[in-house]
Amino acid sequence: MSRGEGTHASAVVGMIGGGQLARMTHQAAVTLGVDLRILAAPSDDSVARVLPAVDGAPDDLDALQALAAECDVITFDHERIPTEHLLALERAGHVLRPGAAAKRVAQDKLHARLSMRAAGFPVPEFETPLSLEALLDRGDEWGWPVVMKSRLGGYDGHGVELLERDELIPFVRSRGPAWFAERRVEIERELSQIVVRSPSGETVAYPLTETVQHDGICVETRAPAPVEPELETECRELALRLAEEIDAVGVMAVELFLTVGGGLLVNEIALRPHNSGHFTIEGCATSQFENHLRAVLDWPLGSTELRAPAVVMTNVLGRDQADPARSVPAALGVPGAHPHLYGKRPGSGRKLGHVTAVGESVEQAREASRRSARILTAGSAA
Amino acid sequence: MSRGEGTHASAVVGMIGGGQLARMTHQAAVTLGVDLRILAAPSDDSVARVLPAVDGAPDDLDALQALAAECDVITFDHERIPTEHLLALERAGHVLRPGAAAKRVAQDKLHARLSMRAAGFPVPEFETPLSLEALLDRGDEWGWPVVMKSRLGGYDGHGVELLERDELIPFVRSRGPAWFAERRVEIERELSQIVVRSPSGETVAYPLTETVQHDGICVETRAPAPVEPELETECRELALRLAEEIDAVGVMAVELFLTVGGGLLVNEIALRPHNSGHFTIEGCATSQFENHLRAVLDWPLGSTELRAPAVVMTNVLGRDQADPARSVPAALGVPGAHPHLYGKRPGSGRKLGHVTAVGESVEQAREASRRSARILTAGSAA
Repeated sequence: MSRGEGTHASAVVGMIGGGQLARMTHQAAVTLGVDLRILAAPSDDSVARVLPAVDGAPDDLDALQALAAECDVITFDHERIPTEHLLALERAGHVLRPGAAAKRVAQDKLHARLSMRAAGFPVPEFETPLSLEALLDRGDEWGWPVVMKSRLGGYDGHGVELLERDELIPFVRSRGPAWFAERRVEIERELSQIVVRSPSGETVAYPLTETVQHDGICVETRAPAPVEPELETECRELALRLAEEIDAVGVMAVELFLTVGGGLLVNEIALRPHNSGHFTIEGCATSQFENHLRAVLDWPLGSTELRAPAVVMTNVLGRDQADPARSVPAALGVPGAHPHLYGKRPGSGRKLGHVTAVGESVEQAREASRRSARILTAGSAA
Repeated sequence: MSRGEGTHASAVVGMIGGGQLARMTHQAAVTLGVDLRILAAPSDDSVARVLPAVDGAPDDLDALQALAAECDVITFDHERIPTEHLLALERAGHVLRPGAAAKRVAQDKLHARLSMRAAGFPVPEFETPLSLEALLDRGDEWGWPVVMKSRLGGYDGHGVELLERDELIPFVRSRGPAWFAERRVEIERELSQIVVRSPSGETVAYPLTETVQHDGICVETRAPAPVEPELETECRELALRLAEEIDAVGVMAVELFLTVGGGLLVNEIALRPHNSGHFTIEGCATSQFENHLRAVLDWPLGSTELRAPAVVMTNVLGRDQADPARSVPAALGVPGAHPHLYGKRPGSGRKLGHVTAVGESVEQAREASRRSARILTAGSAA
C-alpha cells in the first residue's frame, strides 16, 4: 500500500462518501493525526469546505482505485458502492475495512436476513418474492398488511411499504426481486446496540440505546435504554457474536426490535458509524467515530463508558427550506444542549444536524435536547 | 460584511494563522456548522490537509483584506500580525475580535505590563530599557540576575533571558528597546485562568489550572488547581476584570504567578485559545475552542463545568526527528488517555501534540496522561 507524499508518518485512511458520517469522522481523524481522504460525490454536501475532499462518485471504479492507491485502508460513510467494485479493490490488493464480503451483507437487506437466519440469529419472518403464490400464502398466514422492504438503498423510511393483499400483486410485478416481504411485528421498543471490532479481534460495546422512530426516521435516541440488565447483556452478546459471524470491522450498529411478547429480533445492521451512535460524541469516553478509525487501523479501541447518567440525542430534520444555520445562536442558548450541524443544504426530511444533551436523568437531558433541536428545526433567526 | 457564496446561512469566521489552535478551532467550527476560513502561511503545517486553508502570510495586508472581505468576523491563532494591519482592517470596516486595541495589548508584553499596572492589576516589578543607568539601579535594588523579556514574539521560553549585572550592558546595547527588565519572582506555583468574553458582555470562566513549566515551556496542566477556594475566586475575578478593562473578546488566558509570599502576579496574557486550555476538550462541558467561536460570533457561551473530578494535560514536545505519529497506536493503548496530534513536522522543542486524561484524582489522570505522552514523545513504533 503506498502512502501519500506526507512529510511524516501519519496513517492514511480513505472514506468513500462525504455525508455527515464522514464529516464527523474527519473531526476524530484530526484529533488522532490521521490523514483522512474522503471520496465525495457532488451530492455529498456535508464535507464541502470542511476538508479538502477528493471528487468522485462511489460507482466510479477509477476514482475508487485512485483513492485506494494513496491510502493504507479504505472505509465507508454509506452502503452505495457496487459490490463488484469492492471486490475489484480487494483483488487489487487494497485493504477494505469492513471487507467486501461483510459490506455486502450490510448492503443487501435480504442477504443480511438470510445470513443471520442461517447463523441462528433471531430475525423477523420474511419471504423472498421468487414465487408470488408463496408470498400470498405467507401473507395469509401472517395476516395483512405485510411489510415490503427494498433490498438495497433503503434508509430513513425510504424503501419500506406496508401493503394489503390486493396491493401486493401489482407491487411485486412492477418492483420484482429488488424487494422482499416481512411479517409485521408488534414492537415494544426499538433498540440499537453499537459494537466495534478490530481486525485483530478486539471488541468493545457501547451502552444499549433506545431509538424512537417517526415514519421510519430516527428522531431520538436515549442512553441508557430503559430495559433490564439481562436484556442489555443479551443485546450486547448478540451484537458481538454477529460482528464475529459476518467478520465486521469498525463500527457495527445492530437495530433491534423488542417485541411486545418480550422477544428480541434483529431488524437491520449497518457496518459504519450510525445515527444511533451520535450520542457517543459527548456521551461516552470515546466517540463511535474515533473508535471506527481506531478499529479500521487495527489500533487499540477506546473506552465506551458513559460520561453521564443519561444522554439524549435528537435529530434535526429538514422542514421545507428552513435553515437550521440561522437559529444556531438560539439553539446554543438552551443550557446543556450541544447542537451539531452538518453543513447541508436545507430540504424536507433531510438529516441536517442533531443535538445531544447529557444529564442526571433521561427526562432532564431530553428536555434540553428536544428544545434545542426544535429551535434548529424551525430554522429562523432568534 | 459580505458573506461567501455558500448555499446557506452559515456564519463565516476568518482565523489568521494555521497552527494547532486553528486546527482545534476548526474541529469546533465543524460541529457548530460555522464556516471557518484560515489564513495559513507555508510555515503553518497544522492545518495542512485537514481543511482547505487560504494561503497567505500574516504580514501580507492584501491577503488579510481578501480574507476579511469574505468573513463576518476575523479572529486569531497567534500574535504575529502587525498592529498597523489590524488597524487598517478595522478602518476598512471589518470586524476583528478581539479588536486591534485589545490585540495590541496582548502582542506587546511591555504594553501589557504598563496597561495592567496603570489599571491597578498586580504585575511583577519591571523597568523599561530607556535609561541604562536607571536599569542598573533597579537591578541593584532587586538583586541580580534580572529577567530580560522580549516585548514581541516571545513564546515557549524564547524571548526570556536571565542576566547578571555585567551581562546587562552589552545585551541592552545590542537588543535595545525591544526588551524590558523584570524583577525575578520566587514562584510557589504557576496558574492559568481562562475566561471567555463576548462583545455583548457575557462572560464565563474555566476552572483555574495549575501549569508546570520546564525551561519556559508548558509541559503539563492540572485542573482543578490545588489551591484554596478563596484564591480560585481571586483569580477568576481578576481575569474577568482584566478582560473587561482591555475589552478582550473571545478566549483570554491569564498566566499568573502565585509567589512564595502568597501574592498573585499577572505574568502574561493571551487573547486567543491557549495551551493551558487544551484540557477543556475532554475536561469541560464546552471546549475553549467552541467558546472562542461562540464569543467572537456573539453567540451564547457554553458551560465551563468540569466533566470529571480531575483533568491532566501533558504536552508532546518534539525531540530531534522522533515522529509521534509513529507511536499513536501505543499511546492509545494507555487506558483513559486521549492523545491529540497536530500534524506537524517533527522538530526539537516543537509542540507536536498533547494528551489529556480525566480521572477521579489528579494522580490517576496524570499517570495516564504522562505515560501516553512519553510514548508519543519517543515517537517510535510500538
